[in-house]
Amino acid sequence: MSNPSLLILAGDGIGPEVMTQVQRIIGWFGDKRGLKFDVSEDLVGGAAYDKHGVPLHDDTMAKAQEVDAVLLGAVGGPKYDDLDFSVKPERGLLRLRKEMDLFANLRPAQCFDALADFSSLKTDIVSGLDIMIVRELTSGVYFGEPRGIFEEGNERVGINTQRYTESEIERGARAAFELAMKRDKRLCSMEKANVMESGILWREVVNEVAKDYPEVEVSHMYADNGAMQLVRAPKQFDVIYTDNLFGDILSDCAAMLTGSLGMLPSASLGAPMENGRPKALYEPVHGSAPDIAGQGKANPCACVLSFAMALRYSFSEGEEADRLEAAVEKVLADGVRTADLMQAEGGAPVSTSEMGDALLAAL
Amino acid sequence: MSNPSLLILAGDGIGPEVMTQVQRIIGWFGDKRGLKFDVSEDLVGGAAYDKHGVPLHDDTMAKAQEVDAVLLGAVGGPKYDDLDFSVKPERGLLRLRKEMDLFANLRPAQCFDALADFSSLKTDIVSGLDIMIVRELTSGVYFGEPRGIFEEGNERVGINTQRYTESEIERGARAAFELAMKRDKRLCSMEKANVMESGILWREVVNEVAKDYPEVEVSHMYADNGAMQLVRAPKQFDVIYTDNLFGDILSDCAAMLTGSLGMLPSASLGAPMENGRPKALYEPVHGSAPDIAGQGKANPCACVLSFAMALRYSFSEGEEADRLEAAVEKVLADGVRTADLMQAEGGAPVSTSEMGDALLAAL
Ligand SMILES: CC(C)[C@H](C(=O)O)[C@@H](O)C(=O)O
Ligand SMILES: CC(C)[C@H](C(=O)O)[C@@H](O)C(=O)O
Repeated sequence: MSNPSLLILAGDGIGPEVMTQVQRIIGWFGDKRGLKFDVSEDLVGGAAYDKHGVPLHDDTMAKAQEVDAVLLGAVGGPKYDDLDFSVKPERGLLRLRKEMDLFANLRPAQCFDALADFSSLKTDIVSGLDIMIVRELTSGVYFGEPRGIFEEGNERVGINTQRYTESEIERGARAAFELAMKRDKRLCSMEKANVMESGILWREVVNEVAKDYPEVEVSHMYADNGAMQLVRAPKQFDVIYTDNLFGDILSDCAAMLTGSLGMLPSASLGAPMENGRPKALYEPVHGSAPDIAGQGKANPCACVLSFAMALRYSFSEGEEADRLEAAVEKVLADGVRTADLMQAEGGAPVSTSEMGDALLAAL
Repeated sequence: MSNPSLLILAGDGIGPEVMTQVQRIIGWFGDKRGLKFDVSEDLVGGAAYDKHGVPLHDDTMAKAQEVDAVLLGAVGGPKYDDLDFSVKPERGLLRLRKEMDLFANLRPAQCFDALADFSSLKTDIVSGLDIMIVRELTSGVYFGEPRGIFEEGNERVGINTQRYTESEIERGARAAFELAMKRDKRLCSMEKANVMESGILWREVVNEVAKDYPEVEVSHMYADNGAMQLVRAPKQFDVIYTDNLFGDILSDCAAMLTGSLGMLPSASLGAPMENGRPKALYEPVHGSAPDIAGQGKANPCACVLSFAMALRYSFSEGEEADRLEAAVEKVLADGVRTADLMQAEGGAPVSTSEMGDALLAAL
């Protein structure tokens, strides 16, 4: 049997640097744990635009459809700020999500013990935090039509469309309930059903799906209250299920509660392929951080932990994922810190590759 | 000359209780400061539904259009959860906003010195916090058409429309820039221009308006990053300008940073009337809190501070507004606390009317 295949799209900014460390980790799993992957690489985002004039080449899109999992670094940068909307780096990422039909975006917001202090929130509010946000990723206002800037009378009007079908809401909900079953069996769904009809439908469908998961305790919250509750008492949540746009904002809010964005991975999953594995793309939550790109300062942990999610969700290697996650925790407990994890009073930070060294040593 | 007129819509839940204290304060300004108001009262939300079968009677709407300012308590409650969308308590509030054309929603997020400890965030991150969020309030996805739940093939689809004209974006931006000029002269505009065309138009118009305010330092942030930055380092902001839906979520997030939702007022302003005063509605940020309604536990400060905003923005009585705000700060500094402002270790809380007593004494 051939090895499972990975497509690495390192992208822009710090993407390539952090991905180099992930490649070393992938190599380690091949050498030491007999988990060999066929790894190929390609361009996405600004890097793809520079070469091809588009943020994702059709050939790259085709490859992404064929591999077992895609690992993505980050896209975007000030250099591309003035590009037309249709070729902005982000469009490459959005095209991958849409065409691979990656409807379930898993965004854990986890507070590492060694870093609890690092949050802007009081330590007791966040220590031990472990939330899983499931964000619908292929629909809603991100993709709804009509959209655009139109002339109307003697002025322009900007239009986007929030649009959710029952089946779109349902498949994401199932993914969220399945995760809740493996966790603390609590699911909170967030929308604005008091203002938006799409939110009313959302709530109805979630309640319908809930009937198939009688063990899961379901609650509903308006998204504005959700943002408040995340700030006030985040540990009240187990799994949160929400739409593409609310999920974008709420998952970033939740991520920042942990105080260490450089630590947070994500998985975007679609339907099972013929081999039973889900279509999948893994990426860190942080962006391309152009301000520190190319300086060896970036924290590779979020990207490394995204590979751990790949081991768990694409390759059913939960134990190997645990091993990798434990290595990250050990390194943190040992006090190894990239610049983003330094407190004001801390010592000297390690570089991106030194963090990679430490992770390999811990493995 | 006749007295300026106020319409009080106490609404549901704790609305009437907190409004009773505001009435006492209004009386005090009439008696002691010669600031007399003609006060009338009417129903909104569930209370209006119970009597008229609609959450805002046409007569009430007409009255609201005629008075100098509306003071609103809160709307909603579990009793009304199963009502049809079109007659939910919230629709009463949304109708007032829309028909009075209250396009600029001012939401200060201010951390009171005496309460800095009360935040879930570390004290140094929030102490002295003073942000003004200006949320566009009459357009966007709250009101855009088409909207509804439709049949499509053999399933239903929920649709809402985000829709902003240049002039809608512009008038809110002007209100935000005017406020920035009176504050620290910094304005951050938030949207998702990387994903939504309406966000691109938003950014363009803000940049256009900025030309008329060369002294104001303008920045732009994606709304997801905005949520992160609010949690990470809220004091970086002075004025934030954002749309109806992002504003709903981000202002609640910002409100919760202060840790004391029971303290936060808001003003919703429209165009100037014939007498030069803007159309205006003032309301606390907190909701109707049905769990504590009718128990004399509610904190009236947010509603009292909303009246202070009325003094400032509707009646150009900035000094009297300062006086009222100073009274609130004094009472807090003296350690007077309603239940919501108690730390675990605190003594006995005061009741809603005792807080009113303390405020009057401080005045
Ligand atoms: C880069 C951008 C298009 C993207 C989004 O808005 O979804 C990002 O913020 C994210 O959350 O993955
Ligand atoms: C009550 C509700 C309709 C309202 C809104 O969504 O605008 C509230 O959350 C607010 O922020 O004033």
